Amino acid sequence: MKTPQEYLDSLRKLHLTVYMFGRRIDNVVDEPIIRPSVNAVALTYGMAHSPKFEDIMTAKSHLTGKQINRFTHIHRSVDDLVKKSKMGRLLGALTGCCFQRCVGMDALNALSIVTHDIDAKCGTGYYKRFLKYLAYVQENDLVCDGAMTDPKGDRSLPPHRQEDPDMYLRIVEEREDGIVVRGAKVHQTGAVNSHEVIVMPTLSMREEDRDYAVSFAVPSDAEGITYIMGRQSCDTRKQEKGLLDRGNIRFGGHEALIVFDDVFVPWERVFMLREHAFTGPLVESFASYHRQSYACKVGVGDVLIGAVQTIAEYNGVDKASHVKDKLVEMNHLNETLYCGCIACAAEGHQKPSGTYYVDPLLANVHKQNVTRFPYEIARLAQDIAGGLMVTLPSEEDLQSPAVGKWVEKCFKGRGDVPTEHRMRILRLIENLTLGTAAVGYLTESMHGAGSPQAQRIMISRLVDMKEKQNHAKRLCGITEETPRE
Amino acid sequence: MKTPQEYLDSLRKLHLTVYMFGRRIDNVVDEPIIRPSVNAVALTYGMAHSPKFEDIMTAKSHLTGKQINRFTHIHRSVDDLVKKSKMGRLLGALTGCCFQRCVGMDALNALSIVTHDIDAKCGTGYYKRFLKYLAYVQENDLVCDGAMTDPKGDRSLPPHRQEDPDMYLRIVEEREDGIVVRGAKVHQTGAVNSHEVIVMPTLSMREEDRDYAVSFAVPSDAEGITYIMGRQSCDTRKQEKGLLDRGNIRFGGHEALIVFDDVFVPWERVFMLREHAFTGPLVESFASYHRQSYACKVGVGDVLIGAVQTIAEYNGVDKASHVKDKLVEMNHLNETLYCGCIACAAEGHQKPSGTYYVDPLLANVHKQNVTRFPYEIARLAQDIAGGLMVTLPSEEDLQSPAVGKWVEKCFKGRGDVPTEHRMRILRLIENLTLGTAAVGYLTESMHGAGSPQAQRIMISRLVDMKEKQNHAKRLCGITEETPRE
Amino acid sequence: MKTPQEYLDSLRKLHLTVYMFGRRIDNVVDEPIIRPSVNAVALTYGMAHSPKFEDIMTAKSHLTGKQINRFTHIHRSVDDLVKKSKMGRLLGALTGCCFQRCVGMDALNALSIVTHDIDAKCGTGYYKRFLKYLAYVQENDLVCDGAMTDPKGDRSLPPHRQEDPDMYLRIVEEREDGIVVRGAKVHQTGAVNSHEVIVMPTLSMREEDRDYAVSFAVPSDAEGITYIMGRQSCDTRKQEKGLLDRGNIRFGGHEALIVFDDVFVPWERVFMLREHAFTGPLVESFASYHRQSYACKVGVGDVLIGAVQTIAEYNGVDKASHVKDKLVEMNHLNETLYCGCIACAAEGHQKPSGTYYVDPLLANVHKQNVTRFPYEIARLAQDIAGGLMVTLPSEEDLQSPAVGKWVEKCFKGRGDVPTEHRMRILRLIENLTLGTAAVGYLTESMHGAGSPQAQRIMISRLVDMKEKQNHAKRLCGITEETPRE
Amino acid sequence: MKTPQEYLDSLRKLHLTVYMFGRRIDNVVDEPIIRPSVNAVALTYGMAHSPKFEDIMTAKSHLTGKQINRFTHIHRSVDDLVKKSKMGRLLGALTGCCFQRCVGMDALNALSIVTHDIDAKCGTGYYKRFLKYLAYVQENDLVCDGAMTDPKGDRSLPPHRQEDPDMYLRIVEEREDGIVVRGAKVHQTGAVNSHEVIVMPTLSMREEDRDYAVSFAVPSDAEGITYIMGRQSCDTRKQEKGLLDRGNIRFGGHEALIVFDDVFVPWERVFMLREHAFTGPLVESFASYHRQSYACKVGVGDVLIGAVQTIAEYNGVDKASHVKDKLVEMNHLNETLYCGCIACAAEGHQKPSGTYYVDPLLANVHKQNVTRFPYEIARLAQDIAGGLMVTLPSEEDLQSPAVGKWVEKCFKGRGDVPTEHRMRILRLIENLTLGTAAVGYLTESMHGAGSPQAQRIMISRLVDMKEKQNHAKRLCGITEETPRE
Repeated sequence: MKTPQEYLDSLRKLHLTVYMFGRRIDNVVDEPIIRPSVNAVALTYGMAHSPKFEDIMTAKSHLTGKQINRFTHIHRSVDDLVKKSKMGRLLGALTGCCFQRCVGMDALNALSIVTHDIDAKCGTGYYKRFLKYLAYVQENDLVCDGAMTDPKGDRSLPPHRQEDPDMYLRIVEEREDGIVVRGAKVHQTGAVNSHEVIVMPTLSMREEDRDYAVSFAVPSDAEGITYIMGRQSCDTRKQEKGLLDRGNIRFGGHEALIVFDDVFVPWERVFMLREHAFTGPLVESFASYHRQSYACKVGVGDVLIGAVQTIAEYNGVDKASHVKDKLVEMNHLNETLYCGCIACAAEGHQKPSGTYYVDPLLANVHKQNVTRFPYEIARLAQDIAGGLMVTLPSEEDLQSPAVGKWVEKCFKGRGDVPTEHRMRILRLIENLTLGTAAVGYLTESMHGAGSPQAQRIMISRLVDMKEKQNHAKRLCGITEETPRE
Repeated sequence: MKTPQEYLDSLRKLHLTVYMFGRRIDNVVDEPIIRPSVNAVALTYGMAHSPKFEDIMTAKSHLTGKQINRFTHIHRSVDDLVKKSKMGRLLGALTGCCFQRCVGMDALNALSIVTHDIDAKCGTGYYKRFLKYLAYVQENDLVCDGAMTDPKGDRSLPPHRQEDPDMYLRIVEEREDGIVVRGAKVHQTGAVNSHEVIVMPTLSMREEDRDYAVSFAVPSDAEGITYIMGRQSCDTRKQEKGLLDRGNIRFGGHEALIVFDDVFVPWERVFMLREHAFTGPLVESFASYHRQSYACKVGVGDVLIGAVQTIAEYNGVDKASHVKDKLVEMNHLNETLYCGCIACAAEGHQKPSGTYYVDPLLANVHKQNVTRFPYEIARLAQDIAGGLMVTLPSEEDLQSPAVGKWVEKCFKGRGDVPTEHRMRILRLIENLTLGTAAVGYLTESMHGAGSPQAQRIMISRLVDMKEKQNHAKRLCGITEETPRE
Repeated sequence: MKTPQEYLDSLRKLHLTVYMFGRRIDNVVDEPIIRPSVNAVALTYGMAHSPKFEDIMTAKSHLTGKQINRFTHIHRSVDDLVKKSKMGRLLGALTGCCFQRCVGMDALNALSIVTHDIDAKCGTGYYKRFLKYLAYVQENDLVCDGAMTDPKGDRSLPPHRQEDPDMYLRIVEEREDGIVVRGAKVHQTGAVNSHEVIVMPTLSMREEDRDYAVSFAVPSDAEGITYIMGRQSCDTRKQEKGLLDRGNIRFGGHEALIVFDDVFVPWERVFMLREHAFTGPLVESFASYHRQSYACKVGVGDVLIGAVQTIAEYNGVDKASHVKDKLVEMNHLNETLYCGCIACAAEGHQKPSGTYYVDPLLANVHKQNVTRFPYEIARLAQDIAGGLMVTLPSEEDLQSPAVGKWVEKCFKGRGDVPTEHRMRILRLIENLTLGTAAVGYLTESMHGAGSPQAQRIMISRLVDMKEKQNHAKRLCGITEETPRE
Repeated sequence: MKTPQEYLDSLRKLHLTVYMFGRRIDNVVDEPIIRPSVNAVALTYGMAHSPKFEDIMTAKSHLTGKQINRFTHIHRSVDDLVKKSKMGRLLGALTGCCFQRCVGMDALNALSIVTHDIDAKCGTGYYKRFLKYLAYVQENDLVCDGAMTDPKGDRSLPPHRQEDPDMYLRIVEEREDGIVVRGAKVHQTGAVNSHEVIVMPTLSMREEDRDYAVSFAVPSDAEGITYIMGRQSCDTRKQEKGLLDRGNIRFGGHEALIVFDDVFVPWERVFMLREHAFTGPLVESFASYHRQSYACKVGVGDVLIGAVQTIAEYNGVDKASHVKDKLVEMNHLNETLYCGCIACAAEGHQKPSGTYYVDPLLANVHKQNVTRFPYEIARLAQDIAGGLMVTLPSEEDLQSPAVGKWVEKCFKGRGDVPTEHRMRILRLIENLTLGTAAVGYLTESMHGAGSPQAQRIMISRLVDMKEKQNHAKRLCGITEETPRE
């Protein structure tokens, strides 16, 4: 397993083509807006070396028997699934942001199921290829970006009927040594701090869309790949001199557009080639795993709740009954989320490949709650934090010889708490509810791993309505009672 | 394990003193208002003989190794805890009401932990006594009422300072062969269909209240015990000739006041005698188990959702997008509840006695959701059911030679559905949202196993706020970052 | 204006054909299940004679200049509309139930607009007829049932395509002296305590449905009319000897099916005859007025809040911060409802006939909230009331020589409060949240004046989305900024 | 009435001492971060000259009979109160932000009531002084900042017991020609674009705090006043070259700390001097008026709803039933807010000074809803907007020769909509839900005019609980029924 330093070194060695604000970025590791997202991933390496957390952060490879980072592991038991949820909460709490490494883990696990299933049905040899690739990822302890969402263009049309054929990523050439692909993946969380990009189709496809039914892995700096960074609320505060106004002084996330401008993929890295019937299962498997992954928001919720308890104390209002009650509500909602990610893991089961799969109904139910509760937790956080969170002057004002004394004097809370500490904790709450981390804690909670309506459709499909109707009809005498007693 | 018939026979043999509407009831089994609650318990016997469900409904006694009804089992693993949740959902769905037998199971499990702990601390011999009693219960497959809630009188005063000393059940005499107790237990769900009553104190007590710190078991027809039945919304419909207007034509619940007018308890049935320091742990253990038990409401929710899907079909509106969406929401809420009862079981752990205990934080979180979601599910049910649910004439009108034809004609829905079926399913929804079953699905969900505020207090105590604050303070730079990466 | 006694006398003189539980009712005034609904209407007469409330309860007829009961008045100003909302809240608070007389007032006002509009378009003479009828109603101070909802049969088909042509009320014969109609009206709140029935079509119709496009008034005991009473939760408690278990000891509502089996209507009472283009406007006008009428639920909410404050005091928990906070929430929701019925009145405007009409968007918004907030208020009420509300023995147990002493002793709350008072207030809360009044406070709030989806469709139609989009597009630079500064 | 240009000119003439990012600002009009807030106020001048809106935007001065900007008007009728609410919604919709001028209007109206009341009780002459000042404000069409909130220090201590006596603004010297004051006002919305600052105490005070019981007006550039600007989420985007990433390309708000470092106030501008008994009434009057002022958020809601409808169309999903339903919900919530600000105005009444005052209970109820609904509207907005809102590259990327083509291609939605338009509307939604305008639409909705708990306390005080209890007790027979029928 790599150390954080080895991870940073490995990133520096990549030749990524990255643009931000219309300009090319030479070195993502040292770019101030990107660096916090590198720090977050680095922590996933560091924690794996912590004896206290090794049970959660690492696993034994079923390929090699070696201890590996859990992010590269294929779940082999219900216990693995439960630990995945716990790892998500832990890292969410330690980083206070989206730590970005789960998506690759989810892609690997989904592929471990579906490549096996394709082979069983079509007599192909994807699973073996996949295991070889997996061994490489485990051996080198790599960060994989799981890339699913295409630009999609006109959403009422399937891929092959789009005016611009590149609206979904597709095979444009088949060569002796591999394939050439073209297209793009949008909303890529944690793209430029990854070593690998694992591409999957974004929806269930039919025969006519077979050129779009493709899955593969490429190194993140493969020729033809360009990254364009997305903006986040308050992103440029990371470029400012001081740290205080950032709120979270070390960690953050990023999102990018990845353009594939005729990228070559050798055969040994191709995991699906036009088997369109398996696009649906791959999307669904990945989505279920990834919906479970929103366990991380419970950890970010822990940070926000901790920050709110702290500002309540700094403001001297932590004993007020309405403040205590709102904190109970925040905890209640946060732990209800935790129940969801634990339950879908605890109710997991084994697939033919041997991989353990979460209960898909409960994973969807969990994610649906994630699209709601963080917003309410954030609203309650703003309630207790007070208006100062959005009227606070800058760190430069606090440091200013001219007006620093006024800032110091007027924004003093409880006597024993430095004004600077009060400002720091308020900036953290701002960060989580309006700033860069709100992008992850709120909007990503809404749309990541599928927008709310996607989960509702799945819930509708996965519940057994007939059985429920049978219960009801029997109890009111429409159908005859089975003589059970 | 008894059969349902053997259970009915055993009830007939009891000499219970029961009052309802100011009159003494001779025979609870044949009293029409009480019978449905007997039927519900009978089903817990019947289902244990079903090969399909034996894994859920039965367990292997850790005392004798024999197969026993799970309701008399002490949880010996996380798997036992999970199956308890599943048994609750199953029986809730099969009966559409509170089936009343969980409270005794929760009392037995709580006593298995606390009698062991008292012995360890005080050198007493309760655990052995308890195991002997447990063997008797398992051997005879008995229904136990777990009796906790006292009248309480003035809630601002402890037991020993009440004007009327009987406001909490207490020891009034200590004899050579046992003790004599006096007092009452209120809100007893499933009292007069039980063989045994297991009494526990209702709150954490101090030295001065030691005479109230008592736990024991008595046969339900012990001398000095009187039952007074509580009324339920629509209770007298069960006395009417027809079945249709009942909604649920076979099952129901009941609540009773149990008066202990100087009841003798022999020593071998006394499990706590003035060890006041253990009243708190006993209350908390029982409460956590019993909060988990609200798994049953998920099953009742299944019935209500099934009924609503059915009436939507009968009304011909099941394809309307808003109807489908409301059904998704009902399912989503119901499955979120399921996540709670599964998670608190899956996160269970072993206590010194060997008994497995649920995660108390998550059990409280689960129950807190139970105080909310069934109300919203019921509201949505009434939305889709339509106003007819409360304007429908009686079954007698439907059968009437004079006006039956009008009822038949005017309340016809979709062409292929008999008016009577539409009436039946509407009556079931009325039963669950306003009638006798609403008492269990709604009000009992609110107050059973502790009112909402009780759970909020426990949530407040059980979360680790300091840890959350540490995360927050480290991330914004108030405390130094642990060098983790 | 009639006195309550004169109203009762006038009811006794009617020859109504009423069925309940399959049996014909001779005299609705003295039937115990129906009487409370007669009492509620009687109060609308009594209050009109109260000097303190005459400003709210009465108005000056624009036809005769005489003082009349406001329930027979046509709104002539914004102030009239506002007073209508206040009258609703007042009577809701005084009766604690649906007082049933608003629907006729709403029918009269809607007809005053639409008959005028039909005449203007079609050169008919309905408005004059209507005014003559109105003068008769005002002069005799009559209760009118406004009858709109038809059985509807298969909801996917228009009236003329129903298998059974009577699924919507229709003209079956046109005679020299009038018309003959056949069909039925369902969900009729306050039918058998009315003097008149005013029939309106239930939906917007097209040319092919012209025989169904009919509006008229008939005496409630016209030949061919049969009433079949609907059941309500806990209805038969009104037949029991004691009053306590009823909760609300005097007032209640009722619902009935009205069958029109070839009923003759003379021309002077016909207000629409096949002018199908005006069915939509009539439905919409009536619906908007009637949605405003749900002001009454604010008054019923006042009763429930008052009851909950009282039980909190009786239980000795009224100072607990969570109890106080829940009561604030109940009041907040209740007053938010009040804002809705005041705002739609305050934003009213005059129609060509001179009648004042509520703002239809805000009336729909108000009613939509009525489909939600009473359910949450009721849930909070059950929270504070405690479980005793559903486990309380009957009044007969309290009076019983055998067990009355136990009931008295065990259900005693605060020392100075008689157990009987505690039982009474709990039974009132039960009545409002599960019993007969829950039918009005909850289910009728959901479906009366149109189910929730009906309001959502109207909200969708009535908001000016284009204007909102113009604001947005201008602000972000998609369209050019109008040079306004 | 001034034109917008005259307003800008008048601002340039002020000698304000303003700091931002630790640096002094020479000219607020041309400072890019401040300018949008100047534009918003300028619009309040421009709209007053619009013939179409003069009825809403202007009024007739009751002092001079001249047409004046409504923002300087004293409400003389219910109609004035209603128009104030409509003006708020209108300007909220036109600016998409907090337009900052209502606070001065609310201060003037509150002082018109309380100065009159002080005189009546204490024989002082404040009202006459106030009217003279009012005439000056009206004549010169000035913007007044209403300054209430003090730093407060330790919230558990009253002003005179604070360690630092300047934690509340106070009189430090009384001179022949006036008084000298010291202290600060925090959270000042729209401070540096005002001509005047009207200071009021922030809470109800007792005798010992009399030096803090002071109200007065000073020119915004009075000697001794220093402004320190607060930061807002995404504030520095206004300093960037392009306009697109701002979302709202023209308007915004600002918040500032105002330090009073021994500022002199001449007697004719002092409106309260140690009459501590009237601090409570002044705070309450101002708060009620200002809670009504949150009518503006309905207008901002209109913008957000319009933006969401637009992005739904651009994404081609505006016909999806769940999208339509969410838009109905957003409108429903927004119009429910509108009902609140209309109802508290419509239920207004006259005070002894002749000023019309809103219904304080309903104003508090309205504001309480404002602390909730905008958060839910914003959540739904993010739901429909899609994840792109937070992953979109910068305007510079769109313009970049290197990657602009990819941005253009990949973020294309519906065929006929330019990518740039899609980006603009998404940036507006970002601005309103996470960016600078979220500060006003969300956090200010929470805390402006008092935090949620302040309204709950007022609701608790203002409802008549005894009357509600009387209704309940009478209905269940605890108290005797008044013979009303």
